[in-house]
Amino acid sequence: MGQVLDRLTTVCRTNDLAPLGERLSALATLVSSDLAEIERDLLASVAPAGASERVVARGGAHLVAAGGKRLRPTCVVLAARLGGPVDDVARELAVAVELVHSATLLHDDVVDLGDARRGRPTTRALYGNSASIFAGDWLLVEALRRVRQTSPEMLVPLLDAIEQMIFAESLQLENRGRLVLDESVWRRVAEGKTASLFAWAMVAGARAGKLTQDEVAALERFGMLLGTAFQTVDDVLDFDGDPTSTGKTLFADLREGKTTYPLILAARRDAGLAAQLGAGVDDDVFAREVLEALRRTGALEEARAFARDQADRAREALSIVRPGPARDALATVLETTVARCA
Amino acid sequence: MGQVLDRLTTVCRTNDLAPLGERLSALATLVSSDLAEIERDLLASVAPAGASERVVARGGAHLVAAGGKRLRPTCVVLAARLGGPVDDVARELAVAVELVHSATLLHDDVVDLGDARRGRPTTRALYGNSASIFAGDWLLVEALRRVRQTSPEMLVPLLDAIEQMIFAESLQLENRGRLVLDESVWRRVAEGKTASLFAWAMVAGARAGKLTQDEVAALERFGMLLGTAFQTVDDVLDFDGDPTSTGKTLFADLREGKTTYPLILAARRDAGLAAQLGAGVDDDVFAREVLEALRRTGALEEARAFARDQADRAREALSIVRPGPARDALATVLETTVARCA
Repeated sequence: MGQVLDRLTTVCRTNDLAPLGERLSALATLVSSDLAEIERDLLASVAPAGASERVVARGGAHLVAAGGKRLRPTCVVLAARLGGPVDDVARELAVAVELVHSATLLHDDVVDLGDARRGRPTTRALYGNSASIFAGDWLLVEALRRVRQTSPEMLVPLLDAIEQMIFAESLQLENRGRLVLDESVWRRVAEGKTASLFAWAMVAGARAGKLTQDEVAALERFGMLLGTAFQTVDDVLDFDGDPTSTGKTLFADLREGKTTYPLILAARRDAGLAAQLGAGVDDDVFAREVLEALRRTGALEEARAFARDQADRAREALSIVRPGPARDALATVLETTVARCA
Repeated sequence: MGQVLDRLTTVCRTNDLAPLGERLSALATLVSSDLAEIERDLLASVAPAGASERVVARGGAHLVAAGGKRLRPTCVVLAARLGGPVDDVARELAVAVELVHSATLLHDDVVDLGDARRGRPTTRALYGNSASIFAGDWLLVEALRRVRQTSPEMLVPLLDAIEQMIFAESLQLENRGRLVLDESVWRRVAEGKTASLFAWAMVAGARAGKLTQDEVAALERFGMLLGTAFQTVDDVLDFDGDPTSTGKTLFADLREGKTTYPLILAARRDAGLAAQLGAGVDDDVFAREVLEALRRTGALEEARAFARDQADRAREALSIVRPGPARDALATVLETTVARCA
């Protein structure tokens, strides 16, 4: 959590968001001890007794130890916190959701031939594609085992979310290099790949915190909208991020032929760009031309507005949930997510 | 089952095993209608409503539709049959075990760069590595969902078996190209990669058939020994199989730098060969020299004897199980497994 707070504090400073800075302190006070415990459990879960010499364990531990925003565990913790102190069940579910997320990254890096993540070489780059595939399989098994043992009723919903992620990855794969500029396809990918796991995290936490059915449903909706906003921001950062703070190379999605949201908006306003994009993107000059077109058509601004709109709707969903510091903290998470690309 | 019976009948004819042929008819009579139903469910499980256009679904279906021995589902069915007619639960578990097996093949083919399997191009070769990875993830999720829904108490044991498989794959990966001629390492790989899933299949069927605790334990042991025998036979076939009936290229494991059982035995008797193997295998001439050494040292014969010994011990485990046609059929499965390399 230290790492993510530092990063978010930097965001606030850079974007002159002082009030958000104060709210981040409140968020930190609320979750830091739970997240520290989850971090310990997470690291312990990838150092199994008697198997730490296995390359899958080293490969899995390498990714997990590299850190990350831990946004999904934060969702579980805050949803649970709405109902009272965070118990072992909620903490285990928080570990599980980060393990699932890590498993998908290990497979994604093989698929995308990714060499760096979180400022370090990927598991794939260090230990090879095969180790990254098996390490992903292993983290998935470990996550499912935890959910089965602590909260069996959340297992089928988790399998559903993972299936959504796989189908979304599949859809993205089928369209790879073709830059399909269709908003409904983009939404299916964003909701499947990103939002479904956020939604699961919210439901898992809410159930662990024994919230009402209405609250669980509202938080699931919150998770979907937060996830969509998160993906939109991620898409904007492909064109307009600071690689030292995002940890992502600029134009990476564009070069991999992945459709990002600003491209769809820009192509809608500039038929010439749409035709150019359809022909493929393969050099730096063209990437800069695309960036120019995104700025000229106002597509980046429009994408940011879409992210803010998703966040507004998420805040609305939150309104039926019992008030208190945990609800405020969820609103803060939402705000910092959108502020990343403000 | 038609396919596997045809193949086994060929084995019997080729190896002049007429009495075994008669026992195979008995086996077929016992399981063919259950296996036909399982085959239908298996194909339906990879053709999900509304997602059949996804490349993961096409990739998964391609492998599953290519057939295979269906040996693991046969184990579930026969273990359940010991207790009475095979019910929906047992059939679902049989589908699940074949889905898990298929998932591992989809990942293995990426790891091994396999281009052909079961006489057809691999999913990897047709749809790409990425599709094969995600298709494997998907089949795994589908398998776990079925087990969770029909037989939740078998889920953690299945996750345990999958973890064993992953650690064994990892161990094999770490030693790849080094031909580690250590029998204990070979055993760990064979038990983890192959035997653990056979053992799970036997326990799953036995529990579905409501057998006694002692019978369940005996059948688990049977599964481990059958699996080890199966792997030993597979290893022998890398040197001494008929590619048209095994569907495997000769010397494939050897060229991939995988330690197979006959190599360990031969190296123990021929220090020169051990040194040569340690230096790596990379041409046809050397592969033939290795084959010559295996024959000269009697290693192939000794490996066959080891497989028969495992089978004898498996038959012994079977002796405490209630007698009847299902038990006889399990003995037949054992015999045909060993007969593949007789």
